[in-house]
Amino acid sequence: MNLRVPGPTPCPPQVLAASARQMINHRGREFARLIGVVVERLKRFYRTENDVLVLTASGTGGLEAAIVNMLSPGDKVLAVVIGEFGQRFAEIAAVYGAQVERLEYEPGLAADPDDVRRALARHPDVRAVLVTHNETSTGVTNPLAEIAQAVREADKLLLVDAVSSLSSIPVETDAWGLDVVVSGSQKGWMVPPGLAFVSVSPRAWEAYREARMPRVYLDLGRHKRYLERGQTPWTPAVSVLYALEVALEMMEQEGMDNIFARHARIGQMTREGVKALGLRLLAADERYASNTVTAVRVPEGVDERALRRLLEDEYGVVLAGGQGALQGKVFRIGHLGWVTEDDIRQTLDALAQALPRVGYEPARA
Amino acid sequence: MNLRVPGPTPCPPQVLAASARQMINHRGREFARLIGVVVERLKRFYRTENDVLVLTASGTGGLEAAIVNMLSPGDKVLAVVIGEFGQRFAEIAAVYGAQVERLEYEPGLAADPDDVRRALARHPDVRAVLVTHNETSTGVTNPLAEIAQAVREADKLLLVDAVSSLSSIPVETDAWGLDVVVSGSQKGWMVPPGLAFVSVSPRAWEAYREARMPRVYLDLGRHKRYLERGQTPWTPAVSVLYALEVALEMMEQEGMDNIFARHARIGQMTREGVKALGLRLLAADERYASNTVTAVRVPEGVDERALRRLLEDEYGVVLAGGQGALQGKVFRIGHLGWVTEDDIRQTLDALAQALPRVGYEPARA
Repeated sequence: MNLRVPGPTPCPPQVLAASARQMINHRGREFARLIGVVVERLKRFYRTENDVLVLTASGTGGLEAAIVNMLSPGDKVLAVVIGEFGQRFAEIAAVYGAQVERLEYEPGLAADPDDVRRALARHPDVRAVLVTHNETSTGVTNPLAEIAQAVREADKLLLVDAVSSLSSIPVETDAWGLDVVVSGSQKGWMVPPGLAFVSVSPRAWEAYREARMPRVYLDLGRHKRYLERGQTPWTPAVSVLYALEVALEMMEQEGMDNIFARHARIGQMTREGVKALGLRLLAADERYASNTVTAVRVPEGVDERALRRLLEDEYGVVLAGGQGALQGKVFRIGHLGWVTEDDIRQTLDALAQALPRVGYEPARA
Repeated sequence: MNLRVPGPTPCPPQVLAASARQMINHRGREFARLIGVVVERLKRFYRTENDVLVLTASGTGGLEAAIVNMLSPGDKVLAVVIGEFGQRFAEIAAVYGAQVERLEYEPGLAADPDDVRRALARHPDVRAVLVTHNETSTGVTNPLAEIAQAVREADKLLLVDAVSSLSSIPVETDAWGLDVVVSGSQKGWMVPPGLAFVSVSPRAWEAYREARMPRVYLDLGRHKRYLERGQTPWTPAVSVLYALEVALEMMEQEGMDNIFARHARIGQMTREGVKALGLRLLAADERYASNTVTAVRVPEGVDERALRRLLEDEYGVVLAGGQGALQGKVFRIGHLGWVTEDDIRQTLDALAQALPRVGYEPARA
């Protein structure tokens, strides 16, 4: 199978083999070594000297951790929403009693840093800004460095969903001043799902001390205290940690810049290939098109579920559907983590062959 | 290594091999089949027709789910506390704003169902009772059937921590009227950590509809809605689910009664062996001694950390230390899940040889 959903992503054989190692005592020395190595390597990819904590949870659990550890009920937040995952981040804040101001864009658009600047001027009492770096539902990457700049000018806390960007697209946690940055193992990290990563800046730890939203399982302070003795507060997903250690080693061997270049090249190749078939991207401005996932508009008259089923059953290519209001309107091609040009070539060939069978005649390349 | 901590427990080779399978689309048909089979089998071990939901979290995440989905801030709960995990359950409720009445026992004691009856008579406004079935920190199993009877008489909601009992010790979810029952993959289920299981009775779903504690990641209603279409709301720990499917198959082959008998036999063997060395159990009354974990009092003058380090480094036996106030005062032998008489024999032999080296002369058997 050519698994081309934007997570879970395929794992290299070495990573899968590591998942099958026997269990160890999570309060013992071997575990302390493991978590120590993993966290040090995560920090390098995060480009940070902040704490990076490892939670047994999906990326959404990581987003919830970002909210409940930094805020109190009644706090005002500005949620920059360009798709489903931005909505989710905002919704979590609302469920826990934050007062949520939304800066919302049509699907396919990226956020404009000047809009963020103006929104913060309109709402000087905002305590934190929530931003999705790479919106997996629309295939759009926000200009995070510029948005962070606007947030810094207003001196607000910045909480970033980097679940489907970090490790594949440049993220400069320290240089851009990102206070909390969340990622997830099953994305560009080439590891099975089960772990979320959360970085916490000194300024975010100050916010933590005042934050009154309830939390136990996702309490980042507990994670920090336990990490200091090489542990996690609760029994962690040990086999996913085994996998992560190996994947991080592979990533260091490839080199961060080479990984970014590969994702940029493959993202470009995917977009060119899709357009050559006469299909249209959801991303309105290609400068903000994502290098980890491409959302493609479903051509008029095509049943998107039938297309994906055909691709899977007869061509061995697994794509993702649209989420929320985009269901049936887009399909998505994941190209993050362990992905090569050949995987994309095969995907595009399969699309070229399958589309006519569901009533759409691709343009000639 | 003879890993004898009460979780993570060793996994059989078939289970580990399954962990190494390649990723799949968690919104696809193969995943729907997988989660469907797993949930049906979990229900058989839960002895329930209630919903059983699978969360990507540790057992503590499962306990938090039990609290936040059933209660509102200000609700009064009765927490039956016989050790660290009972404390943790109570603490979670308190963090989320419940008014917690504690029925607390000295470490080593089981709860008395008549005490529960009296406490409920004293506090008729209690909304839910929190009970640890098997207290992993003290090696004591509460008489859950009798406690449940007392709770039923008072017509209260019963939330049960069965993390280290279910699958190894009989739990009759439906026959005993247990409203919410939490377990965790890395205990008797012979699977790596990463998944929590939570059963929810119809009466608990009624409570859910009124419960106002905030939740998103651990929201059981979302898990139920997604499960109806063969999914989880958030990306789940797929490789742990692969492992679980195989482990459940092995458990069905062995048979539930045989599994219980094996745990009873091995629990007994562990206690007899420990006592034959002249050591004392923490469990005050052997009728309530746990068949999944044995807590042993550290003999006067023995450095418990030195003992465990020696056992690990020179005998390949990994035991657990004491938790909380019991640190340094007990060590614990896990005997749940994939465990045989030989594992325990080797553990007891190692203890017999190591104890004199840390200043304790075992009694002659």
